[in-house]
Amino acid sequence: MYNVKIAGVGSFLPGRPITNRDMEHIFKIREDWIEDSIGTKTRYFATNFENKKIEYTLTDLCEKAALEAIEKASIGAKDIELIVMSTATPDHLMPATVNLVADRLEINNIPTYQIQAGCSGALQGLEIAYRFLRSGVYRTALVIGGDVCNKYIDVDRDFTKLRGYELINYALFGDGAGATVLTAEDGKQGIAIHSIQNCFEGLGREPGQVMNWFGTVPEKIDEMSMRDRRKVFQSAKEDYKAIEKNVPLMAKEMIDKLLNDNNWKADEIDFYLPPQLGGHMTDKIVQYLEIDDKKVINCVAYTGNNGNGLPYIQLKQLIEKMNLGDKAIGVAIESSKWIKTGISLIRE
Amino acid sequence: MYNVKIAGVGSFLPGRPITNRDMEHIFKIREDWIEDSIGTKTRYFATNFENKKIEYTLTDLCEKAALEAIEKASIGAKDIELIVMSTATPDHLMPATVNLVADRLEINNIPTYQIQAGCSGALQGLEIAYRFLRSGVYRTALVIGGDVCNKYIDVDRDFTKLRGYELINYALFGDGAGATVLTAEDGKQGIAIHSIQNCFEGLGREPGQVMNWFGTVPEKIDEMSMRDRRKVFQSAKEDYKAIEKNVPLMAKEMIDKLLNDNNWKADEIDFYLPPQLGGHMTDKIVQYLEIDDKKVINCVAYTGNNGNGLPYIQLKQLIEKMNLGDKAIGVAIESSKWIKTGISLIRE
Repeated sequence: MYNVKIAGVGSFLPGRPITNRDMEHIFKIREDWIEDSIGTKTRYFATNFENKKIEYTLTDLCEKAALEAIEKASIGAKDIELIVMSTATPDHLMPATVNLVADRLEINNIPTYQIQAGCSGALQGLEIAYRFLRSGVYRTALVIGGDVCNKYIDVDRDFTKLRGYELINYALFGDGAGATVLTAEDGKQGIAIHSIQNCFEGLGREPGQVMNWFGTVPEKIDEMSMRDRRKVFQSAKEDYKAIEKNVPLMAKEMIDKLLNDNNWKADEIDFYLPPQLGGHMTDKIVQYLEIDDKKVINCVAYTGNNGNGLPYIQLKQLIEKMNLGDKAIGVAIESSKWIKTGISLIRE
Repeated sequence: MYNVKIAGVGSFLPGRPITNRDMEHIFKIREDWIEDSIGTKTRYFATNFENKKIEYTLTDLCEKAALEAIEKASIGAKDIELIVMSTATPDHLMPATVNLVADRLEINNIPTYQIQAGCSGALQGLEIAYRFLRSGVYRTALVIGGDVCNKYIDVDRDFTKLRGYELINYALFGDGAGATVLTAEDGKQGIAIHSIQNCFEGLGREPGQVMNWFGTVPEKIDEMSMRDRRKVFQSAKEDYKAIEKNVPLMAKEMIDKLLNDNNWKADEIDFYLPPQLGGHMTDKIVQYLEIDDKKVINCVAYTGNNGNGLPYIQLKQLIEKMNLGDKAIGVAIESSKWIKTGISLIRE
């Protein structure tokens, strides 16, 4: 089995940071409500809400993140032998966005995969590439994750009429992408992937989050009232209470599992990458886990929750901080049907 | 490295076969035009066009195919250690359909993956499971593929006004799902996966097929004309000519690659599973490949093109026919951004 290392990490956040004051201006969501309820301070959107134009596709965000990861890894795109991408919000159903990104990067004649997943996707993508590299099938993989919200934001809605559970979506989420180059080349120093876990445990449990299509095609859309049409386009639903209750427990279970499987003790861990839902919720998880704040790599309060992009943004910060011999544990939880994922890393 | 075998295959086609006469009745597509242009005789739809109700979700189709595969493999759902599913047309963006299927099968606490892909998806899913099993990470995997068309069929359209390139979609595609159980257990007889190839080669090439979202949310939908609204819902486009030109070439390249990599000669191959686009096109591919008709496993003329489901339906037919020592080669081509995939099999 080959040792798999992170050779470079990149990320891209579109446009300027959107503050909570901006959010009040754009969505009529009260600034103090976001501060109190969510605790996220800024996020980034691929949509420019001033002119109501979509300025970046997911392909754009992923291309930019990938280019940075490739540059940081000191390789060329031609060295990549495998691409795995993950997203909840692809640009099309077909072609898969990963193939549009490959085209932009001028990559050809290699296998490409795209995982459909929520917040667990980044670690799922990393696991697939890790397993392929570990068994010696390939030596260099590009792994990408990203999400864009414009699939469920109707810029023309009357945001004053939204209910709390809908407002939460707008306040929680943002757009962004991240990428990493993994290598199975011998002899290179770097952050080695020690293990990855990916565990569905949604049996018999209601989804905590549902993101629909913008319809299957509504029957008789031309005869539908505006109110009914809105229902078709009201596509993202959160059970925030279920998420608030379950995610800390699942995060703790995953950390304990990683420690146990690796035979690592909690006080040996130098860095933790906790689930990134929203500013306050992530703070609560860290409290619940009883982790020293200095060991925590958080970014959601400033990036917003950009789903499949976030773990890469954490990894990018982690790389700057890790010293030889340092150990780190990262966790991502998907509440859409309850998946817990974890990664353990060691600087060699 | 472990030897990976197909332990069981299942499939499910919804409702009754829809004949070309039915198609003329439902879509106002002339029966003789379908016969002459497409050559597909029947297909199955998850939508009941008589009462305009969607009678099966993708989850439903995949559950039924998976149950058959599990039964044929003489195992229980509890024995499955990994699920990989592929589709172009998931029921939701989140939760991923694979997790709803896992829930139906009463499977919990295992990793699940969902690949977003067109016709190459089944072989991509098989490759991921194959690599995981081959390296000994897991011993038993369930691999599922399926598609449903109702994401791009507007049952209320005036089908007499459709253009040729739109009519082709309705005439070509159908709904269905397939599944297989793969095992890395020693000592079992069965069809072993000898190799799998998956190669993106879309660099600089226009997509042959685009399947959009039903919008990003259209701006000002309430002010849009019916005609403009229709554009939003006209979501599937084919470049049939590019597909007709490229797919036979790509299929030949993949078969040659598999033969060459395996050091197999063409006359050693007992069965071929060619790409399944439509009745006539698949016949033309077989002619171009100069394969003896008796060696060919085709089903598309009777199932319609159900995308990620089709290769499993071919595999199911293959299993019935293969004798000890027989060799088979299967190919699937994705025209959405030009991916060629292939599998080689041997009965041990």
